[in-house]
Parts: sequence; C-alpha cells; structure tokens
Amino acid sequence: MINLQDKFAKFSEHWTPKVIAEMNDYQFKLVKIEGEFVWHNHSDTDEVFIVVEGKMKIEFEHETIELNQGEMYVVPKGVQHKPYAEQECKVMLVEPKGVVNTGENSGDLTAQNDVWI
Amino acid sequence: MINLQDKFAKFSEHWTPKVIAEMNDYQFKLVKIEGEFVWHNHSDTDEVFIVVEGKMKIEFEHETIELNQGEMYVVPKGVQHKPYAEQECKVMLVEPKGVVNTGENSGDLTAQNDVWI
Repeated sequence: MINLQDKFAKFSEHWTPKVIAEMNDYQFKLVKIEGEFVWHNHSDTDEVFIVVEGKMKIEFEHETIELNQGEMYVVPKGVQHKPYAEQECKVMLVEPKGVVNTGENSGDLTAQNDVWI
Repeated sequence: MINLQDKFAKFSEHWTPKVIAEMNDYQFKLVKIEGEFVWHNHSDTDEVFIVVEGKMKIEFEHETIELNQGEMYVVPKGVQHKPYAEQECKVMLVEPKGVVNTGENSGDLTAQNDVWI
C-alpha cells in the first residue's frame, strides 16, 4: 500500500520526480513544483498530471490551463508545454518508464531518472 | 482539464468503471464500489487502484490490504484478488485499454467496457 502524503513527506526539493510505483512499463511519480519549469515536450508519449495538493498551471502555445487539487490533465505527446506553480504544488505524474522530466530540452532542471522513494 | 469529483457526480451505480482519460494505450477509469466484488485476475496486466474518497479493501489469497483516501496499490498481473468496500468508496483505476473489470471471471458483475463519461 502506497500513501501519497507519506511519500511526499520524504523529500522537499522541487522539479525532481520520484518514482513510487510501477505498473507494467509505466511509472507513477511524485513531484513538488514551485515557480516556472522550462518549455519542453515528450516526442514519444503522452504525460499525465494529477494535482494531489495545491494548484498549478500548464502553459501551451495558445492557451494556459489551471489544475486544482483533484484535477488531472493528459498532455499529448509532442506538445510543447511549460508547467508553473505560484506556490508549492504536489503532483503525481504517470508516464512510461524512462521519460526524462525536461523531454528533449535538457539543462539545469533535468532530474535524475528512475529515482525511487 | 478533468475534475475527478465532477466526473464521479455523473453516475451512481456500483462496479461499473467509466473512462475519463486516455494516455497512450492506457485508460484512467473512475468506479464507485460498495459491497463485495468477485474473485478474479487480469492475466495480461498489472492494475492500479487509487482511492479518491472513502476506504476499501482488497483480499488476496494470503492477506487483505486496506486502502484509505490518498492511498494506492498495484495489483500484479495474474494475481487473484477481490475488492471490497463496506461503504461506498470512490476509486480511480489505471490499466491498459480493453481490460474487463472481472478479468477471466465474467458474470453478473462484468461491466461494459470502454464507457466514457
């Protein structure tokens, strides 16, 4: 049994997804976000954002969506997006094993992959 | 943007998973459960249970686990299990498109597949 808030309590840094579960070749990851991420896309896969606590925004080329606690969104593969949170927001990501957080746009915010908590 | 509680408000029946989102060839489904389900397994895939509201149990051959709100569990493929909830519990399932709720054990509780809300 995996308790999401217990897992969130195990780390404090932002923009570093931690794996909490694997289903077939997909992973469930928790991440705390605050401030602006970088524009990026994942050319091979959709990516699911589920807001567990707080609120966040995802900027797209032509619109910005807001996600509150208990809301989710599927970013289609290949679509440029930039996550943002004014205050710390706790998010669960669902995506195939091996997906890098910054997609094709690696840099300072690129997190180590496949880190379990 | 998909609001889980708004989606749950759209149906009242038990044990009938409704699709709310698709990520690649996987689906996110909401289901309200109450009482006992049937023993079954999914021979081809793991299955994720995430409790959105309430609490539930999953019986396995040698143990029973309890899941409360904000907790999740990955039932490994091929493992016999029987979900149970004393009072109504709201659950999100994640599994590949095409998975039938009763697995190999079809019967009265077998729900129509791929029903979106």
